Amino acid sequence: MTIATLDLEGVLIPEIWIAFAEASGIPELRITTREEPDYDKLMKYRLDILAKNNIKLADISRIIATLEPLDGAKEFMQWLRSKTRVVILSDTFEQFASPLMAKLDYPSLFCHELIIAPDGSVADYKLRLDDQKRKAVEAFKSLNFKVVSTGDSYNDLSMLRSADRAVLYRPTQKFAEENSDLPVATNYAELKSAFAKFLDE
Amino acid sequence: MTIATLDLEGVLIPEIWIAFAEASGIPELRITTREEPDYDKLMKYRLDILAKNNIKLADISRIIATLEPLDGAKEFMQWLRSKTRVVILSDTFEQFASPLMAKLDYPSLFCHELIIAPDGSVADYKLRLDDQKRKAVEAFKSLNFKVVSTGDSYNDLSMLRSADRAVLYRPTQKFAEENSDLPVATNYAELKSAFAKFLDE
Repeated sequence: MTIATLDLEGVLIPEIWIAFAEASGIPELRITTREEPDYDKLMKYRLDILAKNNIKLADISRIIATLEPLDGAKEFMQWLRSKTRVVILSDTFEQFASPLMAKLDYPSLFCHELIIAPDGSVADYKLRLDDQKRKAVEAFKSLNFKVVSTGDSYNDLSMLRSADRAVLYRPTQKFAEENSDLPVATNYAELKSAFAKFLDE
Repeated sequence: MTIATLDLEGVLIPEIWIAFAEASGIPELRITTREEPDYDKLMKYRLDILAKNNIKLADISRIIATLEPLDGAKEFMQWLRSKTRVVILSDTFEQFASPLMAKLDYPSLFCHELIIAPDGSVADYKLRLDDQKRKAVEAFKSLNFKVVSTGDSYNDLSMLRSADRAVLYRPTQKFAEENSDLPVATNYAELKSAFAKFLDE
């Protein structure tokens, strides 16, 4: 029996921080795990910029409410959920992702949480679990599932490497070159085809 | 961060074997885990009756295609999925449950598989994992989730007892008496209320 684990940002929805960077006119917030593999370093940098610019969670939520899943993501998810179990493994935060989950018919999302101060500012972030993507895949394997997985970036690597089958989805050239043994999908049709092969085995 | 694990038959959909017993006119197939706690014994008994009556998977599938989720189940699931992650932990079989999962907007279902012979008869069943309900709850706890759970019968007991919070859903009087320390919900409004308390903590 199979289960699919998917990264969220860049795979099903836009990169939230990039969208916020553009909407807020703060280009320093454009950096993601694609460029900075050290997640804690990246988050501290982001929180510092938010504080300096006096940006509250509500300011970010207003932008996120305008975002939509990537073109074709909803149909891809409908197909995948009709074929197997699906869990989204993301290093995003519940507060950011919720409105977008509604637009994808509420798939199961394993992620983290922001700590919000009484004044509505983003005080800190709380990882539910360190290296949660890898640990979730290993937990599913211990429950006798075969795991197929896709992601686009460094924070997906331990998940992809733990899975029984992994596909890179629209990775940067650098990430694809560093993992040249893994197949690449550049659109949902290709991802569907790569997953279908595994699911039908 | 929370996750809800739910039994399927009797909680969200009718008992499949009972529905089949009634439609096929074979009353011996009415027995479920509510009456026979030994699942392997129960399944061998069921497969034996199917073989004796020359019943194929297609015969069962035809009946299942006519079933609907219990009244209010779809709305309850929509509410629950908007509040937290949801995984259905069921000892049913993928081949039986699939058409009903479509009617519930494809929640994640962890279950088992039937082994179908070339002539379409049900040759055997394959547990994905022994005591999978308990093991799944423990896996979710190891991934730092708080688990809330509901079920109606003996095969749910290890799941309910492993969860951080458990609610019995429309249990038999006997099962409720044997687990009188656990709260009972007799409809979705009560279950929603019991879950909401936990999810808001």
